[in-house]
Amino acid sequence: MPGPNAARRNERSRRAILTAALELLAETSYPDLTVEAIAARAGVGKQTIYRWWRGKGGVILEALVDATDADGEPRLPDTGDLGADLRTVLRAIVAEFADPRLSATTRALTIETLADDTLAAQVRDQILRPQLDAVKVRLRAGQDAGQVRTDVDLDQVVELLVGPVYHRWLLRTGPLTDDYADGLVALALAATSPPERPG
Amino acid sequence: MPGPNAARRNERSRRAILTAALELLAETSYPDLTVEAIAARAGVGKQTIYRWWRGKGGVILEALVDATDADGEPRLPDTGDLGADLRTVLRAIVAEFADPRLSATTRALTIETLADDTLAAQVRDQILRPQLDAVKVRLRAGQDAGQVRTDVDLDQVVELLVGPVYHRWLLRTGPLTDDYADGLVALALAATSPPERPG
Repeated sequence: MPGPNAARRNERSRRAILTAALELLAETSYPDLTVEAIAARAGVGKQTIYRWWRGKGGVILEALVDATDADGEPRLPDTGDLGADLRTVLRAIVAEFADPRLSATTRALTIETLADDTLAAQVRDQILRPQLDAVKVRLRAGQDAGQVRTDVDLDQVVELLVGPVYHRWLLRTGPLTDDYADGLVALALAATSPPERPG
Repeated sequence: MPGPNAARRNERSRRAILTAALELLAETSYPDLTVEAIAARAGVGKQTIYRWWRGKGGVILEALVDATDADGEPRLPDTGDLGADLRTVLRAIVAEFADPRLSATTRALTIETLADDTLAAQVRDQILRPQLDAVKVRLRAGQDAGQVRTDVDLDQVVELLVGPVYHRWLLRTGPLTDDYADGLVALALAATSPPERPG
């Protein structure tokens, strides 16, 4: 059994590896990123990485889950103004995809998850699901407040907001801007607002 | 200059390679697909493939563009019923993503395009853009017929229809069914239909 010093050393190595992986990902393209380079940057042997992870995809996933955990459970603002709150979150999501460093990470994970079902399930359940659920919780509050029709599937409304952003990012079909985010929110609200009551 | 026999032989080899690539893609996972295997199945040398393409991604892209060309310019039905026409096309798109063989191809190309900007532009312009534009043309006819608001950005409406399908397929967050396709069309129509005229 490793003593406390060994455990501390392990944790220090683990943190160095995760930090190195995210740094290198922002500097290089994913196909060029190697376990060797991560090990060199972190100051550990390649074997240390392969002892703990199957490959670079796993390292990056753990780095992201770590970052997510540090932020705590994601939660959307609830100011009472559903449109304003959704614009806040959509602008943030669009900005993440427009940011070269974060986009490189998402690109890397997307490649890995397309080729690995197990990793896909981990990314979905540990990183994405909590974020999508936070949007759903805010929409449900809007439903309770009479701002969203009760007959819509809230999972589909979440996809209506986030799906187009992924599509535009993936296929590079247009700019990722605040205006674009606001336009998506306007369409989603038009799709889900209750019919006007006769005055 | 190659004579007519050499040109015929080349075209026969090219067709055999493209067919072999799509067949193997449906049978194996993309990371396991090799240029060697494509060459063996097509009955050509590996060097023949590398003489004409940079790698497997390029082979698959050309196979798909060939298949698309054979179909001619994509065009949506226009029965006058916008909802019915959009349900027809959305159900077809959702079925493609749900089909294991076609999904494997899309998965492969998506991986390649995430790692290669040049290939991404080719896929977007040669395969996707004509399909997305066909949906846009049908929406514009709906606009002319007073069924779609004139103040909406039709490119965004196309993304509203197709983006959620990509998102659900990419992240494997739910089933890809006719009901799902119909639900998306209902939301998009609600988002874009003109306000009811006072009766």
